[in-house]
Amino acid sequence: MLKKCLENVRKTVPLVHNITNYVTVNDVANVLLACGGSPIMSDEAEDVEDITSVCGGLNINIGTLHKTSIEGMFRAGKKANELGHPVLLDPVGAGASALRTNTALDLMRELDLAVIRGNISEIKTLALGSGTTKGVDADVADAVTEEDLDEAVEFVKRFAKETGSIIAVTGAIDLVSDGEKCYVIRNGRPEMGKITGTGCQLSGMMTAYVTANPDDRLEAAAAAVCVMGLAGENGWSRMQEGDGNATYRNRIIDAIYNMTGEDLEKGADYEIR
Amino acid sequence: MLKKCLENVRKTVPLVHNITNYVTVNDVANVLLACGGSPIMSDEAEDVEDITSVCGGLNINIGTLHKTSIEGMFRAGKKANELGHPVLLDPVGAGASALRTNTALDLMRELDLAVIRGNISEIKTLALGSGTTKGVDADVADAVTEEDLDEAVEFVKRFAKETGSIIAVTGAIDLVSDGEKCYVIRNGRPEMGKITGTGCQLSGMMTAYVTANPDDRLEAAAAAVCVMGLAGENGWSRMQEGDGNATYRNRIIDAIYNMTGEDLEKGADYEIR
Amino acid sequence: MLKKCLENVRKTVPLVHNITNYVTVNDVANVLLACGGSPIMSDEAEDVEDITSVCGGLNINIGTLHKTSIEGMFRAGKKANELGHPVLLDPVGAGASALRTNTALDLMRELDLAVIRGNISEIKTLALGSGTTKGVDADVADAVTEEDLDEAVEFVKRFAKETGSIIAVTGAIDLVSDGEKCYVIRNGRPEMGKITGTGCQLSGMMTAYVTANPDDRLEAAAAAVCVMGLAGENGWSRMQEGDGNATYRNRIIDAIYNMTGEDLEKGADYEIR
Repeated sequence: MLKKCLENVRKTVPLVHNITNYVTVNDVANVLLACGGSPIMSDEAEDVEDITSVCGGLNINIGTLHKTSIEGMFRAGKKANELGHPVLLDPVGAGASALRTNTALDLMRELDLAVIRGNISEIKTLALGSGTTKGVDADVADAVTEEDLDEAVEFVKRFAKETGSIIAVTGAIDLVSDGEKCYVIRNGRPEMGKITGTGCQLSGMMTAYVTANPDDRLEAAAAAVCVMGLAGENGWSRMQEGDGNATYRNRIIDAIYNMTGEDLEKGADYEIR
Repeated sequence: MLKKCLENVRKTVPLVHNITNYVTVNDVANVLLACGGSPIMSDEAEDVEDITSVCGGLNINIGTLHKTSIEGMFRAGKKANELGHPVLLDPVGAGASALRTNTALDLMRELDLAVIRGNISEIKTLALGSGTTKGVDADVADAVTEEDLDEAVEFVKRFAKETGSIIAVTGAIDLVSDGEKCYVIRNGRPEMGKITGTGCQLSGMMTAYVTANPDDRLEAAAAAVCVMGLAGENGWSRMQEGDGNATYRNRIIDAIYNMTGEDLEKGADYEIR
Repeated sequence: MLKKCLENVRKTVPLVHNITNYVTVNDVANVLLACGGSPIMSDEAEDVEDITSVCGGLNINIGTLHKTSIEGMFRAGKKANELGHPVLLDPVGAGASALRTNTALDLMRELDLAVIRGNISEIKTLALGSGTTKGVDADVADAVTEEDLDEAVEFVKRFAKETGSIIAVTGAIDLVSDGEKCYVIRNGRPEMGKITGTGCQLSGMMTAYVTANPDDRLEAAAAAVCVMGLAGENGWSRMQEGDGNATYRNRIIDAIYNMTGEDLEKGADYEIR
């Protein structure tokens, strides 16, 4: 299944429209190319509807949110919804500023989001802010660990059910749920946190995966998480004495570029709950 | 001749003002440094006239067009024209959105462009939209191949003559013409398409080449295309097992950095029609 | 002392708010991670106060200045001042355009800047423009060399005293002064000038250093300069045949990532005047 998700990306070369931050945008583009997709970036409100119309999916990332690009997010999102394209939201920094939190919540309210992908703090912020989840603070910690895994899985499932979006929480352990099933994924390495934008890269790639696998969005989202984590492991295995986070960044993208469906099936480390 | 073009860049260190997209801008800057030029970036309308005045050439790229930067493009372009600096237009995504197409056409109308560099689809869009070329759709396909090369050369020559700009169409086969002569260049590798922004990088470098070779702009533009393609070949020859598009990106820039005039003369693969 | 400065960064993981240019921002983020800090980027006026409040220091870089982000610089700077966070100004291109020069001077007037870091031309521009220094043109050349070192040290000390900021002038020889003492630092390699943004990277890292060493800001700023220069030396020692500026960029960041306090003490090449 994961194998087929990967191969569908390489076969159909999904064109992904990205409205994303200027910090990690180049890596997002190269990761999209590495995984077999194709990137376009555009955030100008007058440009986004045309651009999203020639694409297959839309990736919205609020990492360097500007008031001028917020309008573009809504216009692109509505057009993508109209066309039936999957829309992914990466609520970078939700919880760290009112503008980010409120914009993310507004996007959730006004758009039909296929996927919301963030770290546990960002997702908790959205769950609290949207009022769909009670007692989040009480039952979900700020890191998903083996100890509190049951509660975290429960929280992610519940939030997915309530929003109607696939929820992907990434960290040391990754959780991906559509409200019914929850993938618990243990690929990856802690050193990935020393590279800027591995989360943004994953969001771009996940949009390509979901776009290329319209009938299996949950599996596709989970497959993208496994690809990223496994690339982190494979890239690390090629590190040499004296290498650091700059080289590791390149090694991970290279590993995505070279990954086959067989590699993914063999290396993916997950269970379904 | 190509050798002299390369050496003039290294000798004169042309300062290039870039109004370009935020996706590939870092690579554009590093490629400009690698080839022997020097980059400055500025797109704020109130800043661009001062900045372009201290430079030797101007590179306008509409890859992530914003309404706020369009004014900067016109103001910089007019100032550069006034000062006799060469202006290059890279019409990224012309044809994919009305804003991009119309902005590119407006820039063509209002500015004296030394060079327009794009892929065949973008250049066709401009030729159709500017009304200077008839029947483009009939006689130019969306990829330049050996089979339709004669028609493509004819189209590029005609469009160069009509616009008064050097036209550079890059793809598997690259064409560079001033309306009289057309360089047909066969350097490069298909894997370059798996790296974001090799076209943007070429536009930046080409601006440096044209700036440093004011009396031989056609040859300079063709030389830049050969450098990029040859760097793609040389960079590829250094790739190792497990490397992918991230490493290839670095290898290409490294190859530009290390290329000598002799390497270029020896490796350039072109004919003149 | 340098050792302790480095170790305090790794121990306290200072969160640095960056309002910086879109050319080198990704490298700034990865350098901040490499040195042990943590980066956040935000330049939207309505976002910056919240963001800077969760950080420990603020890095303002005017490399691609926009009118829309100027307001963000002032709002973030005032909030950071209010909270007692160190604010660093990198006046990229001051002297090259009126907008840049005036904005830098306005920032100096309205904010309490812990550090101003630039090249000698930029710093001279600010000294002349702020009217605090007389006869700068007469006694400071546009490059700091062994021959004019005495004058340059005098100039930097005087400007530091007059502004109340630590002044860091980087080039072949680097000077860092608080008005009393001046670190004269000779680490680094000329090839670093062939990589875009090593100055911006240093400003980001220096903000982390100053943030993590509140009682030793001068030493911390000097330590950051030594780290950058030493990383340039260490990175260069790993270069292989065929490598160029793209690989060198990665090697430098890798060297920062791997540098220990002992490495720094051993490799730092400085005197205090």
